[in-house]
Amino acid sequence: MQLGVIGLGRMGRIVVDRSLDAGHDVVAFDLDAEATAAAAEAGAIPADSVADLADRLGEGKRIWLMVPAGDAVDATLEELDPHLDGGDVVVDGGNSHFGDSTRRADSCPAAYLDCGTSGGPASAEAGFSLMVGGPEWAYEELTPVFDAVATGPAGHDRMGPAGSGHYVKMVHNGVEYALMQAYGEGFELLHEGRYDLDLEAVARTWNNGAVIRSWLLELCEEAFREEGADLGDVADRVEGGSTGTWTVQEALEQEVPLPLVYTALSERFGSRAGEDGRFSRRLANRLRYGFGRHEVQRE
Amino acid sequence: MQLGVIGLGRMGRIVVDRSLDAGHDVVAFDLDAEATAAAAEAGAIPADSVADLADRLGEGKRIWLMVPAGDAVDATLEELDPHLDGGDVVVDGGNSHFGDSTRRADSCPAAYLDCGTSGGPASAEAGFSLMVGGPEWAYEELTPVFDAVATGPAGHDRMGPAGSGHYVKMVHNGVEYALMQAYGEGFELLHEGRYDLDLEAVARTWNNGAVIRSWLLELCEEAFREEGADLGDVADRVEGGSTGTWTVQEALEQEVPLPLVYTALSERFGSRAGEDGRFSRRLANRLRYGFGRHEVQRE
Amino acid sequence: MQLGVIGLGRMGRIVVDRSLDAGHDVVAFDLDAEATAAAAEAGAIPADSVADLADRLGEGKRIWLMVPAGDAVDATLEELDPHLDGGDVVVDGGNSHFGDSTRRADSCPAAYLDCGTSGGPASAEAGFSLMVGGPEWAYEELTPVFDAVATGPAGHDRMGPAGSGHYVKMVHNGVEYALMQAYGEGFELLHEGRYDLDLEAVARTWNNGAVIRSWLLELCEEAFREEGADLGDVADRVEGGSTGTWTVQEALEQEVPLPLVYTALSERFGSRAGEDGRFSRRLANRLRYGFGRHEVQRE
Amino acid sequence: MQLGVIGLGRMGRIVVDRSLDAGHDVVAFDLDAEATAAAAEAGAIPADSVADLADRLGEGKRIWLMVPAGDAVDATLEELDPHLDGGDVVVDGGNSHFGDSTRRADSCPAAYLDCGTSGGPASAEAGFSLMVGGPEWAYEELTPVFDAVATGPAGHDRMGPAGSGHYVKMVHNGVEYALMQAYGEGFELLHEGRYDLDLEAVARTWNNGAVIRSWLLELCEEAFREEGADLGDVADRVEGGSTGTWTVQEALEQEVPLPLVYTALSERFGSRAGEDGRFSRRLANRLRYGFGRHEVQRE
Repeated sequence: MQLGVIGLGRMGRIVVDRSLDAGHDVVAFDLDAEATAAAAEAGAIPADSVADLADRLGEGKRIWLMVPAGDAVDATLEELDPHLDGGDVVVDGGNSHFGDSTRRADSCPAAYLDCGTSGGPASAEAGFSLMVGGPEWAYEELTPVFDAVATGPAGHDRMGPAGSGHYVKMVHNGVEYALMQAYGEGFELLHEGRYDLDLEAVARTWNNGAVIRSWLLELCEEAFREEGADLGDVADRVEGGSTGTWTVQEALEQEVPLPLVYTALSERFGSRAGEDGRFSRRLANRLRYGFGRHEVQRE
Repeated sequence: MQLGVIGLGRMGRIVVDRSLDAGHDVVAFDLDAEATAAAAEAGAIPADSVADLADRLGEGKRIWLMVPAGDAVDATLEELDPHLDGGDVVVDGGNSHFGDSTRRADSCPAAYLDCGTSGGPASAEAGFSLMVGGPEWAYEELTPVFDAVATGPAGHDRMGPAGSGHYVKMVHNGVEYALMQAYGEGFELLHEGRYDLDLEAVARTWNNGAVIRSWLLELCEEAFREEGADLGDVADRVEGGSTGTWTVQEALEQEVPLPLVYTALSERFGSRAGEDGRFSRRLANRLRYGFGRHEVQRE
Repeated sequence: MQLGVIGLGRMGRIVVDRSLDAGHDVVAFDLDAEATAAAAEAGAIPADSVADLADRLGEGKRIWLMVPAGDAVDATLEELDPHLDGGDVVVDGGNSHFGDSTRRADSCPAAYLDCGTSGGPASAEAGFSLMVGGPEWAYEELTPVFDAVATGPAGHDRMGPAGSGHYVKMVHNGVEYALMQAYGEGFELLHEGRYDLDLEAVARTWNNGAVIRSWLLELCEEAFREEGADLGDVADRVEGGSTGTWTVQEALEQEVPLPLVYTALSERFGSRAGEDGRFSRRLANRLRYGFGRHEVQRE
Repeated sequence: MQLGVIGLGRMGRIVVDRSLDAGHDVVAFDLDAEATAAAAEAGAIPADSVADLADRLGEGKRIWLMVPAGDAVDATLEELDPHLDGGDVVVDGGNSHFGDSTRRADSCPAAYLDCGTSGGPASAEAGFSLMVGGPEWAYEELTPVFDAVATGPAGHDRMGPAGSGHYVKMVHNGVEYALMQAYGEGFELLHEGRYDLDLEAVARTWNNGAVIRSWLLELCEEAFREEGADLGDVADRVEGGSTGTWTVQEALEQEVPLPLVYTALSERFGSRAGEDGRFSRRLANRLRYGFGRHEVQRE
């Protein structure tokens, strides 16, 4: 089938390449003309604007957006709007908030599929896991492309109506934060603990048959192999957090306790404290003087 | 090579079977004569006592203990003691505390290997992950058996000196608690949240290419498949906790924060509260009346 | 001075009574005519509508709203709107979200003071703590009334511009949740622990000189005295949570970790789980079978 | 009555002074002769050794130990041992572990009272809160001294048998950690949040009538007054932790969840991480590259 892809960053490019490999025709566009040219070199038909891409697709357009979540999605949809009708399908493969996706599904003239995409650039070869929300017919229509972009038929599924794909992806990311922190705690204890251990060997041994084996643990193994068992100069600072924040916000609304996800998210916030450090700790330090005359540590 | 196996429960039996499959000779003993007979039927040489097993092994004994952690290990070692010398090797494949293993390594006449074993009965076919502590020569001596019992050469490694195998296994289990709770939080939010989702389909989609794919997530998928997406009559009560407790205790000594492991362990404790529920919540309920005259919920 | 009070529930009535006691004139109105009549009996001038109350106040109106946070505040402000001008002052003494207060301050023709009120009905005699946000002149204008309604001059202060009073009150409540849970944890351990203790005596001893003495601990002491050291039939269920939720939401936006406040809030959510209990625990229970063939607890 | 006091540090000296003020006779000893001399100047009878102190007390000795918890207590008890019989009473007013106290009560020839002491040097004037464990007759015998050293009769009580005094004090300290952290979270959010607030004014307003008023909050107020609302050069590092650790250890044995106490303790551990920072965060940082090719922050 024929697929338009808008947004040719690392992730969009994987969508293009995997679709081409599976024999689909791809029309590709990016604001960056070089990215468009590179996709063309790989076999895609280049478009020089959103409108041009829409024109080239003809009737029954299938368009995959892989642009940054937020305003870029709305801007692209606005440009697409006059070219779309009810027989077209638009897929948003980015990390949009499910509430935005529901809103866009309501206002988009085409059928709208919100598609949570997991696996990251690292899984270009193996394929993604795709969590799709939206009308069933549109999901079925896109199935050949999903088969190509995902790890195969088992790597994608329709979760439910509009928003559900990004909803499931949001929760996925919340869990991801907690898993990373859980492994981190274990390796921190091994690192600080009473034996002098080769953490790469530990991770490798665990990855071969242990209950906690996982892809993230394979990435830990890789990290220790590439950075050394003490992680070299890797800094004690963790960026990111938006999807984890969304997960906690939704859980607050649903009154579902997520202490592990919350704590993992908090660790990221804490890792980004300013020069003075955490105010709560500074107060605790001073309070110990207040009641116990314990010496106040000062900068 | 020739291996004595003492303790023929589910786990010990897997050691026997995998060793036999790999062409090793096995002498097997269990306090339960039926278990010994069953192992004999599978090809092992039956022994009718610990002493008999020791006799049958001759010089350079290699003995694998797979008995319950605690007193049973000490009792078996005491029985073995007069039959052992420095050329023998004893493996403790159970979930012993690393402190016990260090103590036993000191007092055992044979070389002593503490061997953390992960994978559980469910991995009888694929093999275990084995984390081994103790003298290097003894570890190398046992390598053919470890190759057979583990998933292969990558599924076992020597972590370090005495105790380190069970130490790494202890931390493994702490991480395991946190991973289970992390997935639990995610699925709880999906279950209670705003979409009506097929959790088996979610787990399957995640297991095919998503960042959080893992063996535990495959077990989640299996659980939803077998119990239904709402987990049927599975109770809100989680048993176990000793290795998690050990992990937290060790982290307290090392002054390493493990908030996720601790919280996961706490959830188990909380799930086992008595009929009256959690005292802390009952007090909070009452305090809200104290300052705000909010009605007290009563049984 | 002359004060109009709208909303004569437990809290509004305290405002009326403490103002009257301090020699102020009070015009009082409540949708419930009986409540208005009761206030009249106590010495207030009754009004039979919001408009009537506004009329009776004349120029330079000072009006205290003590109605439930949310729509009731907006509805009352709408009724008041035609009667207000820039020389009037409206105080919202309820538990409004600071964002609503900022919005209302913008649209209200009068000067608007958001006033966080702590102490609850229990402190009718001692007076409240009042955290006030809004224009300085309006705060100063109301000072005689604040002196009367609070514990005295030290019991109220202007926190800053519009919204800051309810903001500080929101954080106060988040901290309150955590303090209640902290005491709850301590008493739960004492209750379940290795000594048979008289918790009322413990609380009393602590309240007399210990570092952790506080008003909440006095309420614990009262609770044990009135309910018994095992809290009798007080249920394991904690209602409420909105201001704690707001606190966590704001902290997510500010990227400030609040693990204790969050955990305390989570305990409330957890205490209100349905009949089936917590899904995360049920999954953990089942997973233990998945990898370890541990028996599944069932309902 | 006559009281021997061994250990004349800040806390022991308060015991001496408050006892003298109440009209008791005090025999005082400290390894530091200057401390003994200073106590003598205040009115105590100086002793130049433990034996000398014992001699001066005659029959029916009442001795208060205020020496550092641990070996110093055992060493002092060993010196006292030959001078004691069953009619004597020894009070350990330090922060001993309840298990040590139970052991000492068993082996001490005198009646042994373990006495948790809260309030710290800061409450020299107001008196302590004393939580006492041990034989009833000994507690009653010492009541006149407890009345003097505590805030009065309500400031001390017999919690139960040997060990229970230090047990209750241990839990007190665990709660104390959590309370400090709870206030710290609140003030951190106010400090980082959207208003520019005078935290001393916030604390003062709260201390006058708010639900969360407490002595610790008065110490917060004092801290902001003395250090400034941003706490000046107070460092982000919190020392101490032993009694919190004991509390968590006991709760693990009793299977009681203490997530707030644990988290508060963890914050202290975390605040004392080495130069490289927290290993768990460094791993999370690197893992984000592993799956998402997010740039790795490096030192």
